[in-house]
Amino acid sequence: MPPTPAFKTIGIISRPRRSKLGEIVPQLLDWLEKRGIATVIDMETANALSRGATGKARLQVVKEAELLLVLGGDGTMLGAARDAAPRGVPILPINMGSLGFLTSFTAEELYPALEDTLAGRAAMEERVLLLVERVHEGNTLTEQRVLNDSVVHKGTLARMIELELYIDGGFVCRYRADGLIVATPTGSTAYSMSAGGPIVHPKVESILITPICPHTLSDRPVVVPDTSVIELRLSHTADSVFLTMDGQTGVPMQVGDRVRITRALERLKLIHPANKTYFEILRNKLRWGRPERLP
Amino acid sequence: MPPTPAFKTIGIISRPRRSKLGEIVPQLLDWLEKRGIATVIDMETANALSRGATGKARLQVVKEAELLLVLGGDGTMLGAARDAAPRGVPILPINMGSLGFLTSFTAEELYPALEDTLAGRAAMEERVLLLVERVHEGNTLTEQRVLNDSVVHKGTLARMIELELYIDGGFVCRYRADGLIVATPTGSTAYSMSAGGPIVHPKVESILITPICPHTLSDRPVVVPDTSVIELRLSHTADSVFLTMDGQTGVPMQVGDRVRITRALERLKLIHPANKTYFEILRNKLRWGRPERLP
Amino acid sequence: MPPTPAFKTIGIISRPRRSKLGEIVPQLLDWLEKRGIATVIDMETANALSRGATGKARLQVVKEAELLLVLGGDGTMLGAARDAAPRGVPILPINMGSLGFLTSFTAEELYPALEDTLAGRAAMEERVLLLVERVHEGNTLTEQRVLNDSVVHKGTLARMIELELYIDGGFVCRYRADGLIVATPTGSTAYSMSAGGPIVHPKVESILITPICPHTLSDRPVVVPDTSVIELRLSHTADSVFLTMDGQTGVPMQVGDRVRITRALERLKLIHPANKTYFEILRNKLRWGRPERLP
Amino acid sequence: MPPTPAFKTIGIISRPRRSKLGEIVPQLLDWLEKRGIATVIDMETANALSRGATGKARLQVVKEAELLLVLGGDGTMLGAARDAAPRGVPILPINMGSLGFLTSFTAEELYPALEDTLAGRAAMEERVLLLVERVHEGNTLTEQRVLNDSVVHKGTLARMIELELYIDGGFVCRYRADGLIVATPTGSTAYSMSAGGPIVHPKVESILITPICPHTLSDRPVVVPDTSVIELRLSHTADSVFLTMDGQTGVPMQVGDRVRITRALERLKLIHPANKTYFEILRNKLRWGRPERLP
Repeated sequence: MPPTPAFKTIGIISRPRRSKLGEIVPQLLDWLEKRGIATVIDMETANALSRGATGKARLQVVKEAELLLVLGGDGTMLGAARDAAPRGVPILPINMGSLGFLTSFTAEELYPALEDTLAGRAAMEERVLLLVERVHEGNTLTEQRVLNDSVVHKGTLARMIELELYIDGGFVCRYRADGLIVATPTGSTAYSMSAGGPIVHPKVESILITPICPHTLSDRPVVVPDTSVIELRLSHTADSVFLTMDGQTGVPMQVGDRVRITRALERLKLIHPANKTYFEILRNKLRWGRPERLP
Repeated sequence: MPPTPAFKTIGIISRPRRSKLGEIVPQLLDWLEKRGIATVIDMETANALSRGATGKARLQVVKEAELLLVLGGDGTMLGAARDAAPRGVPILPINMGSLGFLTSFTAEELYPALEDTLAGRAAMEERVLLLVERVHEGNTLTEQRVLNDSVVHKGTLARMIELELYIDGGFVCRYRADGLIVATPTGSTAYSMSAGGPIVHPKVESILITPICPHTLSDRPVVVPDTSVIELRLSHTADSVFLTMDGQTGVPMQVGDRVRITRALERLKLIHPANKTYFEILRNKLRWGRPERLP
Repeated sequence: MPPTPAFKTIGIISRPRRSKLGEIVPQLLDWLEKRGIATVIDMETANALSRGATGKARLQVVKEAELLLVLGGDGTMLGAARDAAPRGVPILPINMGSLGFLTSFTAEELYPALEDTLAGRAAMEERVLLLVERVHEGNTLTEQRVLNDSVVHKGTLARMIELELYIDGGFVCRYRADGLIVATPTGSTAYSMSAGGPIVHPKVESILITPICPHTLSDRPVVVPDTSVIELRLSHTADSVFLTMDGQTGVPMQVGDRVRITRALERLKLIHPANKTYFEILRNKLRWGRPERLP
Repeated sequence: MPPTPAFKTIGIISRPRRSKLGEIVPQLLDWLEKRGIATVIDMETANALSRGATGKARLQVVKEAELLLVLGGDGTMLGAARDAAPRGVPILPINMGSLGFLTSFTAEELYPALEDTLAGRAAMEERVLLLVERVHEGNTLTEQRVLNDSVVHKGTLARMIELELYIDGGFVCRYRADGLIVATPTGSTAYSMSAGGPIVHPKVESILITPICPHTLSDRPVVVPDTSVIELRLSHTADSVFLTMDGQTGVPMQVGDRVRITRALERLKLIHPANKTYFEILRNKLRWGRPERLP
């Protein structure tokens, strides 16, 4: 007889276009049912199943679950993390494609990982999210969490944007650039890295600010404490300037808008393989130590 | 009596919002009239004059002129250059604001520069333009010249684009990036530089290819001969991909579109100060040799 | 009558070749004497005085002092900091030349800064140092603190070095490069920045690892927690490899040597102007926000 | 009967520590002898043979040969190229290890490549070399050709160097850096690339100037015409400054020394595989288009 599971209800979120899900999910539901664990699945997963399963909205899945199983890539994880983190629901991420920075269990490791998790043996780490507020004349218009980054950037045909960076109320500098990325350490290996930013280990309590194609050549990525209050102000008009969250959702900014970014109170609880270090995953993703070297 | 001028008709193109033009242009028209030189001005310049002057479309100005006086910044120059180069009309650029890479005469140097030009004493250099064709199933849909650069880039909320670079028909590499800049040496100090590209002297017969925020870390700017036929192909869908010319005009790309870039046959004839070298202007613009150095 | 000073003995360290010291130091000694504060000066400062003053070795000055006045540039500060930090002696740095990252009081601010310091009104911050050990077969051969950085690099005519980075005992990656910089946040604006590293705010508890001219194009600067135990191992021979401390002292490395770097227990106590923020000094040094921008 | 060979005497240069040479070279000598072609081998190759062969100095080998077979890596090629180019002797480079930028035939392709070369069917390209002169008070002290690059750099424990760049007699800028690389297009994929330089196609008639760890953040790699006369002047003392050629030989510089760099008159004749393009080799070496991409 298995021990009383640590979690009574497990939510499952997946991307239906991943081909193997049609096989994996039914088997997984059976496996969990046998152990007396209730499951709640999202609508897209339900639709991908051949049998008539009922799915719920992703946010509802997160609300009902005590543990969230995410089957997908880093993209699926980003959305799930934004929902799960503020509710304290830990995530067990299973990669359905190539190894991700966030989804470090492979499909083969699904059941061992689940068993370790249910038995309370799994390694759990916390990842910081940022709280991004769009503020207009003192009113917070929108508020969203991001696990990777928040980006203020020019629209498609605009030439560049000009914005001012304030930290803890003090003026830091004025940027003329395609945009500015404000990232967590988790996000340091995502878009910020393409823009020339450093790799920041998730345990470094910091926020990373990376300009995109800065016109001022002395502009450099800056790493500041994650207790900082970061504010971005558009210098002139906000014509064709956008605010993007985790590269997934975006809104146009209006004249006079400010973006206020702070560390979110709640952190993401992320289950990860005890035997794979951060640097091992990094090395694998970046092909470090391989012979792509120059002569 | 002044010598017979080398140019019988001079075209004038300017940006009307430059405040000093209301004074400069009437005086200039008088000065030219006294020397028996006909003038043709663009509509925007005409509107900015207090007296009732008649302006023409910019392209018409270029067609009627034997010499083009451009009063403005580098932005005004880019448009004028695209019109003037294929018609062989030389440009005398006068900077109305801060010194530009292209507009290296100051407002104070207007008359000395004009006198030198009319007397045939002015230094003239040639700048290469690129011919950019958007091709679909073998048909050239659009064709435009650029003095600085042509950019294929992602739309506002897209995550990245994936495109393939071919040179002279041979596959070079696949880019996953925010975009790709194909620039003339003249354009090497414009957008390409923000994206990390090198400075290429205008006399180096080359085309510069600079990725914007490449996801593959080994991607580097590449300098190829300007006799190359460069072709960009979108790997997958062309959803939300744009083609921009000199940072001034842009069109959305369609699935199956290819961008073909070659050196334009005709070069821009650019009058420049005999006493200011390329590197002097560069040093000034980039503040080289100034004490912005680290300790 | 001035209040009982917080410090009974003040040490003075300076670089004698700074011309103004001949005037400043005698006046300063008088000023301190009048307030009943004993002084101890280093030999170089003593030699620069016209009257027959007796100087002591710098380390001895630090040992006898309760507060250290450093008159010089960032270079002088680095040496003083390495001596003062492990003994808990705070430093009041006065810049004799151009504004430094570490020496943020100007010569004009000397007496106001001293008065604030003696009255206990001065702002004091702490800066982390690194403890750098050269270890051979388990024996620590040398041990030194650095305020900026420790660098392992190739000798003059060597082609490159190959070394392995371990963090907390785990393999991170192998570098083929001219060298590797391990820097404090303080050192992020020194040599690391020249090699492409980010700016790290002094309050971010981290260590910055920046490769110099890496042959592997995917090598990037990495920011890790300052609780990390960093170990560098030479892959092959240690022929012509050097270990440099704060860019000031260096030793050749031997085959089998390892470099072990950890955060030093004691931090530097640094008095700084209450009205100048970190970013203000940075902006000034890097000429941020000035018009060196591209068009 | 084979056709009359295009070359009567073939020189062979190799690095003896390459293990396979003991088998390859005797077989090769027989193969050539059968075709009535005389051979001259260098001393290191001779020593590596089991039978008593007589070798000559490498320079003598080049002088007597009409075609030079270089068995080795890019390092062996650099030295052979400096000797062969001014004498007009073409090089057939066979790679004994991993594929090089310069040695693009594999060991398996040795005989087909030789047959093509002897039959006049081989593809031949020309590569530019630079002539590097160390000049003191108008006297050329030393003069050497380089195929890749010439580097002026700081000594092991020096902090940085300060030097001025002049092109065609005109001042360009002052560098404060670890050093400055002046490279051919061929050298753009060698040390210059590690220092952040662009890839320059060999057919772009240019010289590439790349600073190493510049203290001035606005310093960028610069590409100039290969007709330029480049002069480097040390700003202050030449204490601990070195001049290195192709990363293989170096000399200390003296106070007042200048380095004058121009395109060498004679080019290297390089036989290369007709079916491998420049970009194919590049893609292979840099692992372009492989999945080392970020998510």
